[in-house]
Amino acid sequence: MAIAANLRKEPGEKAKSFDSLVALVQDDLEKVNRQIVERMHSPVDLIPQLAGHIIAAGGKRLRPVLTLASARLAGHQGERHVKLAACVEFIHTATLLHDDVVDESELRRGQASANALFGNKPSVLVGDFLFSRSFELMVEDGSLPVLAILSRASSIISEGEVLQLITANDTETTEEAYLEVIRSKTAALFAAACRIGAVVADRPQADEEALDSYGLNLGIAFQLIDDVLDYSAKQAVLGKTVGDDFREGKITLPIILAFRRGDDEEREFWRRTVERLEQQDGDLEHAFHLMEKHGTLNDTIARAREYGDLAVAALDVFPDSPLKQAMADVVDFCIERAY
Amino acid sequence: MAIAANLRKEPGEKAKSFDSLVALVQDDLEKVNRQIVERMHSPVDLIPQLAGHIIAAGGKRLRPVLTLASARLAGHQGERHVKLAACVEFIHTATLLHDDVVDESELRRGQASANALFGNKPSVLVGDFLFSRSFELMVEDGSLPVLAILSRASSIISEGEVLQLITANDTETTEEAYLEVIRSKTAALFAAACRIGAVVADRPQADEEALDSYGLNLGIAFQLIDDVLDYSAKQAVLGKTVGDDFREGKITLPIILAFRRGDDEEREFWRRTVERLEQQDGDLEHAFHLMEKHGTLNDTIARAREYGDLAVAALDVFPDSPLKQAMADVVDFCIERAY
Repeated sequence: MAIAANLRKEPGEKAKSFDSLVALVQDDLEKVNRQIVERMHSPVDLIPQLAGHIIAAGGKRLRPVLTLASARLAGHQGERHVKLAACVEFIHTATLLHDDVVDESELRRGQASANALFGNKPSVLVGDFLFSRSFELMVEDGSLPVLAILSRASSIISEGEVLQLITANDTETTEEAYLEVIRSKTAALFAAACRIGAVVADRPQADEEALDSYGLNLGIAFQLIDDVLDYSAKQAVLGKTVGDDFREGKITLPIILAFRRGDDEEREFWRRTVERLEQQDGDLEHAFHLMEKHGTLNDTIARAREYGDLAVAALDVFPDSPLKQAMADVVDFCIERAY
Repeated sequence: MAIAANLRKEPGEKAKSFDSLVALVQDDLEKVNRQIVERMHSPVDLIPQLAGHIIAAGGKRLRPVLTLASARLAGHQGERHVKLAACVEFIHTATLLHDDVVDESELRRGQASANALFGNKPSVLVGDFLFSRSFELMVEDGSLPVLAILSRASSIISEGEVLQLITANDTETTEEAYLEVIRSKTAALFAAACRIGAVVADRPQADEEALDSYGLNLGIAFQLIDDVLDYSAKQAVLGKTVGDDFREGKITLPIILAFRRGDDEEREFWRRTVERLEQQDGDLEHAFHLMEKHGTLNDTIARAREYGDLAVAALDVFPDSPLKQAMADVVDFCIERAY
């Protein structure tokens, strides 16, 4: 594929991928997938049907893989991380279901979204089911510290989602407010997914915090790149529509920077299109042009790199190992998606 | 009020009310209300605004009062039941918010519903927040058995809600399927709210099960009467609209019995109105007439009485006390709402 060439940071350096980390936790991940299928079961058939649709729809299992990898990096020898990785995926899936209802999304990973296929009502309720089931699984595991970390993360996620609703269509949204949104709605679950790895391995507080920091900064980088990808032609390859955020008036960093750096005429363009949502043919192209002119997509990627560097640095407390290297490579992989 | 006369079961017998139970747990309930206000706080202002709207909108606090009363009946001397009663109310409020989105309700307890006032999106997300916050409070309490009971109840509630969606508009719904819906969507939380009272009091399994049975049967009776009230002129007094269930094609016991007992022409009437939702002027009145003809509202009340009797009988394991009497009276109060 032509894109592969772009992935190279230095001539000769191999593109980073998610595969090496997945390979290192492959056996555990298969157990997680079995847990997910078993535990989304309900006598009410529509629940596993709808949940299965979204869970099977080609997700990368990034978050549960992070739980598995973090637990192993922290030295966990048992199996507890398998069930907890399934919990993390259930929470993530529940938030996706509710997100798609809230965003009125038609597509998810290139397929019809659950709400488009089954309707909003069962999507809301099956999200609730997965969320509750996730807590049931945590109770089975029996660790109050894990329950504390994941219930706190869940509260923060919904706070972030509400904050995102409020900042939607507001061109005055600051970079700080935007970062607060993505820290809450995305990075908090990455942080929690990693942190519980240290908890099941009974590691000291410092290791918990190191893995939390790795997850948090990786999560921020991941979401920054996601927001860049919304304006990238690569979106089509990923089965998504280009410019969804623009059409919905979702104010992400590429727009925040373009608005701040723009002249009066440009600001009026942004107000008309993403604040008042009075859009016409050619607007998306003009938005691209303004982002290009002010370099805001590249600057967003640069910010993502900074957070990515923090994520990798957080792993310093752990001795070198192929697993640690693969976790560092995942950071590059998340950022290189942008190219 | 003219209705008061109807409340008398026997000449001279005083109408049962919820007030005597509330009076017995008044101090605890005030602490619960303070917990609720404190713990629904978030730096994202919209969350306490929206949550406050529904929590302040004149709810009876029936479920948290049941937790308080059950804990005291079981001999709990401490304060743990206060926080757990707030958890129960948060779970209930979260399900109400999601219910109103799913049902597209405009009114809740005679006031504009949160979704009508704030929109569906924040209602879904604030529901998620309250649900997560509820688990945070449970973790603070620190009892895994309580977490197990309430996470299980939450899963069952969402299963019941999905089952209700599936049976909506299906005139072939059996009485058993209907009972399964109300057992899950309503009675499971009543049962859990009561059961955790025995858990915090460290009572033996038998007492846990007694309080679970009290709550479960009370919950079933409560929902049966709610479904009768939807066809009652008293609805207007309660700030609700008469016949909402009929208009939405929600198949409750009064319709199930009328359909089963009806002739071909009557069954076709039900199919047209609540299955195909082809409704016209006079249909609601004709529905009343058919329910009257077959005595289905009275028979639904009679079923509620049977479950109510089971609820009262479940309290037998506890020694007589004013609190036990008040808990028995609440059963009558719930049923007498129908008159």
